[in-house]
Amino acid sequence: MKFTCEKSILQEGISTVQKAVTGKSNLPILNGILIKTNKNELILTGSDIDLSIQTKIKADVIEEGTIVIDAKIFGEIIRKLDNDTIHISTIENNSIEIICNKSRFTLIHMKPEDFPELPNINENMIFSIPQNILKSMIRGTIFATAQDETRPILTGILFEINNKKLNLVALDGYRLALKSENLDTDNVISAVIPGKTLSEVSKILEENDENVNITFTPNHILFSIAETKIISRLLEGEFIKYSSIIPEEYNLKIIAKRGELLNSIERASLMGKDGNTNLIKLNVEDDTMVITSNSQLGMVREEVNIILQGDHLEIAFNSKYLIDVLKIMEEDEVVMELSSSVSPCIIKNKDENNCTYLVLPVRLLNN
Amino acid sequence: MKFTCEKSILQEGISTVQKAVTGKSNLPILNGILIKTNKNELILTGSDIDLSIQTKIKADVIEEGTIVIDAKIFGEIIRKLDNDTIHISTIENNSIEIICNKSRFTLIHMKPEDFPELPNINENMIFSIPQNILKSMIRGTIFATAQDETRPILTGILFEINNKKLNLVALDGYRLALKSENLDTDNVISAVIPGKTLSEVSKILEENDENVNITFTPNHILFSIAETKIISRLLEGEFIKYSSIIPEEYNLKIIAKRGELLNSIERASLMGKDGNTNLIKLNVEDDTMVITSNSQLGMVREEVNIILQGDHLEIAFNSKYLIDVLKIMEEDEVVMELSSSVSPCIIKNKDENNCTYLVLPVRLLNN
Repeated sequence: MKFTCEKSILQEGISTVQKAVTGKSNLPILNGILIKTNKNELILTGSDIDLSIQTKIKADVIEEGTIVIDAKIFGEIIRKLDNDTIHISTIENNSIEIICNKSRFTLIHMKPEDFPELPNINENMIFSIPQNILKSMIRGTIFATAQDETRPILTGILFEINNKKLNLVALDGYRLALKSENLDTDNVISAVIPGKTLSEVSKILEENDENVNITFTPNHILFSIAETKIISRLLEGEFIKYSSIIPEEYNLKIIAKRGELLNSIERASLMGKDGNTNLIKLNVEDDTMVITSNSQLGMVREEVNIILQGDHLEIAFNSKYLIDVLKIMEEDEVVMELSSSVSPCIIKNKDENNCTYLVLPVRLLNN
Repeated sequence: MKFTCEKSILQEGISTVQKAVTGKSNLPILNGILIKTNKNELILTGSDIDLSIQTKIKADVIEEGTIVIDAKIFGEIIRKLDNDTIHISTIENNSIEIICNKSRFTLIHMKPEDFPELPNINENMIFSIPQNILKSMIRGTIFATAQDETRPILTGILFEINNKKLNLVALDGYRLALKSENLDTDNVISAVIPGKTLSEVSKILEENDENVNITFTPNHILFSIAETKIISRLLEGEFIKYSSIIPEEYNLKIIAKRGELLNSIERASLMGKDGNTNLIKLNVEDDTMVITSNSQLGMVREEVNIILQGDHLEIAFNSKYLIDVLKIMEEDEVVMELSSSVSPCIIKNKDENNCTYLVLPVRLLNN
């Protein structure tokens, strides 16, 4: 194998596929990147079996070939080389030679036969969506996935397509995040994608409106973004019937400025940190929400101007869950829908109806 | 006690004195900041006994008083408050009340009587030096202090004044860093200041040429920077007679571009990382330095253009020590002075003679 490639192009390609390489695998081959020449390009692949990323980059291929090379050391070497043309070729002793100006590296490579085969996926595109929108939908839900593995299905995000709508849903038993976008498709799909996959997908997605094409098989999802393909295993099992959890009616509706509410809750949470409970109390009456918290260090009382439709209510929350939601939302004004001190709180944008957040309250002893 | 103060001013004051508060003390009082009203200003003090920082900030004092308040939570609260006037007053139950717009905090305070007294230092200024120069001298030596405590004196930096010169010296048994500046003083001083102190001093020093005034007592050093005083205990014991370690003669002199040399050594060090030895070999001949390193992963060979005065030499180093030095130096060209493969290497600027770095080579088995 022999090729030359511009440093910046090779570096970007490695950085993309490296997102699928955990570097912690006991199988050395999974810590490697598969490099395959293909006419005037290279196909780079990284994989931890559950998640595989493949990308194509331009290169000047002098002699065809395929190798696997340790991702970490190869990535570090390429990153540190001069910003110039890099010459790579296989040499004796299962090694490759990397030359750039006056730098010359020799690196052991691994056998491509041992590298896992990518699942064979028929690329009949099922739907496509602009990159920036998918990125924002992932960002707006991923924080609510479960972090522990006791119920593995909850570590993923539900991709649900029906009624010409794409819904992303995450929930962890204490809160739920739902983001929706209209989609021009008649397909009906319901699949749960590992949070880790979507976290890496989101890093690769750019802030522009070029399309991502998405294909499903019974066990896998394939994202195609320009020259890059991301293939992930789906999580097995049924996702929770989330729509039955979201209450449709409410007794109180609060409209508040998102920034003010967030700042006040963040300040109030400073007091709750001590006992690690993050407990804050919200007291809603007329045009004011009073937020209080106390610990052995002291007390805090915050006042936020609101518009209230409905009665007085006192309710307590883990401040972290409210902060996570208010940080991720994008509009200046939010709506909170509440029914009682022991019923879920729904948080939405005031204007655009493209997200629904649910946070369970903390039941206080004196309720 | 009762005062008002602008949020930004109070935040900056807390941030300054907090640098002396480790937050890890078993004595709660040492995790606090002493706040004392003084006419139309506040005196803030943080101390871990070895190191104390005191600063004065403008405030509107309505009622005199002194309190100690937990630095971490107080700092976090002030930082999160609106950018507006903050009202602070003592209230019942050993507490203070902090009010800013619609935020109201109550915080337990501690007794000022328990706060350690600052050493009494007669502020006869011994010398002064522009902030940016002292900052650069600390930065240029602190990396060479010993990190382990087996010889406590080596965790500090020697401040030596004689012959109208200030020398800062650090050494850890493997390398030595010396920075010098001319000083208009006839004083003769030799004192060792803890590395931790100088690291905090360096964060407070700004990149301008306003003076720092420095005072010594037999046990302490006092830095006065505008409204801030930093007082540190000195380290006890004799510093190593460093001048006898620095060879004055050499057989070879190499001139190299600092950036090229640094990049090549950094790349070569990627190979050495594996076995954690960081070993690189330098082979100097004619107008070329060849840098090589190898590990079970592979090999690297780098070439750097040099100007050589003297004979051929092969010598090995721990690459980390060369990288530390070359990163910190400021001129584009450096001079290396060498005598043999087992004698120290001296690195200096090509032009300005204000620093001397010494790195010991690694003795190879075949030498």
